Amino acid sequence: MGNTQASRCDDTSARAGEALRIDGSRLWDSLMRLAEIGATPKGGVCRLALTELDRQGRDFFVREAKAAGCTVRIDAIGNIFARRAGRNDSLPPVMTGSHIDTQPTGGKFDGNYGVLAGIEVLRTLNDHGIVTHAPLEVVVWTNEEGSRFVPVMMGSGAYIGEFELAGLLAQTDRDGILVGEALKAIGYEGSAPLGEGKPRAYFEAHIEQGPVLEANETTIGVVTGALGQRWYDVTVTGMEAHAGPTPMALRKDALLAAAELVGIVNRIALDHPPHGRGTVGCLSVHPDSRNVIPGRVSMTVDLRASDDGRLSAMHDDFLTRTQELATRHGVSIDVRQVVYFPPQPFDTDLVHAVRTGAAALGLSEMDVISGAGHDAVYLARVAPTAMIFVPCKDGISHNEIEDAKPQHLEAGANVLLHAMLDVANQPSSTSRR
Amino acid sequence: MGNTQASRCDDTSARAGEALRIDGSRLWDSLMRLAEIGATPKGGVCRLALTELDRQGRDFFVREAKAAGCTVRIDAIGNIFARRAGRNDSLPPVMTGSHIDTQPTGGKFDGNYGVLAGIEVLRTLNDHGIVTHAPLEVVVWTNEEGSRFVPVMMGSGAYIGEFELAGLLAQTDRDGILVGEALKAIGYEGSAPLGEGKPRAYFEAHIEQGPVLEANETTIGVVTGALGQRWYDVTVTGMEAHAGPTPMALRKDALLAAAELVGIVNRIALDHPPHGRGTVGCLSVHPDSRNVIPGRVSMTVDLRASDDGRLSAMHDDFLTRTQELATRHGVSIDVRQVVYFPPQPFDTDLVHAVRTGAAALGLSEMDVISGAGHDAVYLARVAPTAMIFVPCKDGISHNEIEDAKPQHLEAGANVLLHAMLDVANQPSSTSRR
Repeated sequence: MGNTQASRCDDTSARAGEALRIDGSRLWDSLMRLAEIGATPKGGVCRLALTELDRQGRDFFVREAKAAGCTVRIDAIGNIFARRAGRNDSLPPVMTGSHIDTQPTGGKFDGNYGVLAGIEVLRTLNDHGIVTHAPLEVVVWTNEEGSRFVPVMMGSGAYIGEFELAGLLAQTDRDGILVGEALKAIGYEGSAPLGEGKPRAYFEAHIEQGPVLEANETTIGVVTGALGQRWYDVTVTGMEAHAGPTPMALRKDALLAAAELVGIVNRIALDHPPHGRGTVGCLSVHPDSRNVIPGRVSMTVDLRASDDGRLSAMHDDFLTRTQELATRHGVSIDVRQVVYFPPQPFDTDLVHAVRTGAAALGLSEMDVISGAGHDAVYLARVAPTAMIFVPCKDGISHNEIEDAKPQHLEAGANVLLHAMLDVANQPSSTSRR
Repeated sequence: MGNTQASRCDDTSARAGEALRIDGSRLWDSLMRLAEIGATPKGGVCRLALTELDRQGRDFFVREAKAAGCTVRIDAIGNIFARRAGRNDSLPPVMTGSHIDTQPTGGKFDGNYGVLAGIEVLRTLNDHGIVTHAPLEVVVWTNEEGSRFVPVMMGSGAYIGEFELAGLLAQTDRDGILVGEALKAIGYEGSAPLGEGKPRAYFEAHIEQGPVLEANETTIGVVTGALGQRWYDVTVTGMEAHAGPTPMALRKDALLAAAELVGIVNRIALDHPPHGRGTVGCLSVHPDSRNVIPGRVSMTVDLRASDDGRLSAMHDDFLTRTQELATRHGVSIDVRQVVYFPPQPFDTDLVHAVRTGAAALGLSEMDVISGAGHDAVYLARVAPTAMIFVPCKDGISHNEIEDAKPQHLEAGANVLLHAMLDVANQPSSTSRR
């Protein structure tokens, strides 16, 4: 009886495979309902990690997951795993997910889409009575944004062992509230052991958060990996002086040197096309007085590249040119690297599955690289991983005006559905790495 | 009798002229006593305009002036005039002075030196029983710094009619306290009509607040005039976007454009040597997040030049290059001029008197131009005016570590003494303009 049932499901899956589609309006409806929790007047969402609004969002997810027949477990950092049993339920699951915390002025889709696309995949399988060989899991990772508590990607980082739990629980927000306290307060300090049950594969659907797909009028971004990142804190120290009486030749203007450094950071990125990135996001001037030559400038530098050789070359070039600049301007420049993420290629087979899946569904697709960090970048260190990008309007994210088209969100979820089905129905003996 | 007395004084003045010197240690002692009022732990002074500390400083000045035999009057904006009668007391006075308000982290000498050098001149004349033909006045101008209340140079500006009194009295500090209220609270809302009794000449001794005299190992700066100034508020608007996913070619980085503008401002000043100045003192980035390409930058620009033709050329060049930059970067740049002070040459005869006076005293001297604004710059619009600069350590002012050498301060006061004597003893019929 068990075998017969299993065979029928396999047959169903194989036969339905070509035609199987998620329900785009149901997905959109779920996104809009979740977006009501923490909705802002400008159409965005403010649902910071581990707040009462985050609890409401998590409760919404748990209700939807249970309605889709899942069992739910929560681990010690508050990651939520919704599990749909497989025929061979002892197999590692095929996992998908993302996060539901947002930036203070965040949008409706960043993170939320990946989570609710996963739920929609499960509902679709339910609709068609399909049971997969391996179990499926949809996960909500805690505090991906890092807006309230650092580090970013806290839940997935804890899951893969990048961070010690005790240290994370002791992190505080600006009001001194501990992560551990906040988890307890919202009832999401779970008992499932951290890092348990690594998946056989991890997929994450996400809005692109960049302008490339839109610029290329392409629906599906086949994400081949994530850029490596090096972040720096830079302090330029010159000599504060009165802007009027100090002749140009006798100045040590920290901002003049810092401004040239902004140009150098840009130049270094341009020297490493097509994926090199260089950004100065923060810059503050001391004393910041209209008629005082700045004596000190603090700034951040963010360099990214697709392979570690290039990233190292950019790093070296940055340090060399910074010191040359300091000498030329008679200022001192202190450079401290504060973050290093190596480039993270995704799993070749899974990436191929996303690419061919999109093509089979008749969707336009192109290879892209993730410039931003995602929970998937951590997961790729412990499991075969791939991501599916869909366009977002004007490439804008982390913003209340973040927007995406229903048909693109539907298309991405369909690609996710078929990619998950493919892997979940593969014989468990296949080693994927 | 009156005539005999007058003749004797004239003779005394003429005979004592060469040998007459102020008392350097008495001047230094006065400076140190005034510096105790609002003294900061780092050796500076915080005595903001129209505060209780300012009242204490004013009271100190009034006591010293009265001890030197002066009558004191106060006008409607709180300017304090200490008058030493002349033999012909109906003549316009020869005036000197400066201010005693400081920056929040100000020094001991900025302003205070000019006021107390004036008092020391009067004491020296008393010591030698010298009465001048025209009366002498030492003035404390209200709120030169503009740190607590805008505009800067409020008292001297009101005196020459640059500002309406009612508008000034209604200006508020950050706590909403009115200038009028603050004046009343410290008891320095005077009854003397504003702008009454314009001087026949105005001198102001001041620390240089720049590095030129020190760099040239020169004691006396003969100030030929003040640079003209044009100040601007500039806003650069690009497109805020995520630093990771946004390729370099698709960016509109407001900070990258602003950084180039900082370089352009510097270049424009270098193109107009030796007195051209270009400074960006304030710059702030929005949203100022490490991994977000800046969407907006607000900055100030300060251009200065010694003649109005050059200042206009710099202005035109700035506007032209700004618009070219905006086009090239695909950003918009809004430029608003917020301040215009035309260059202010000082009185040729008085400047000459300072120069020859310094030489006669055996002091090294050089012509300099005032890059900063001073009360003297306003006074020059209504009376023959000159300034005397002395070196300050490392050219640093508006800073608690502001420092000056006693012998330089003494030398400057001696130049002031002889310049004032010369003018005050000239026949009143001489038209100086």
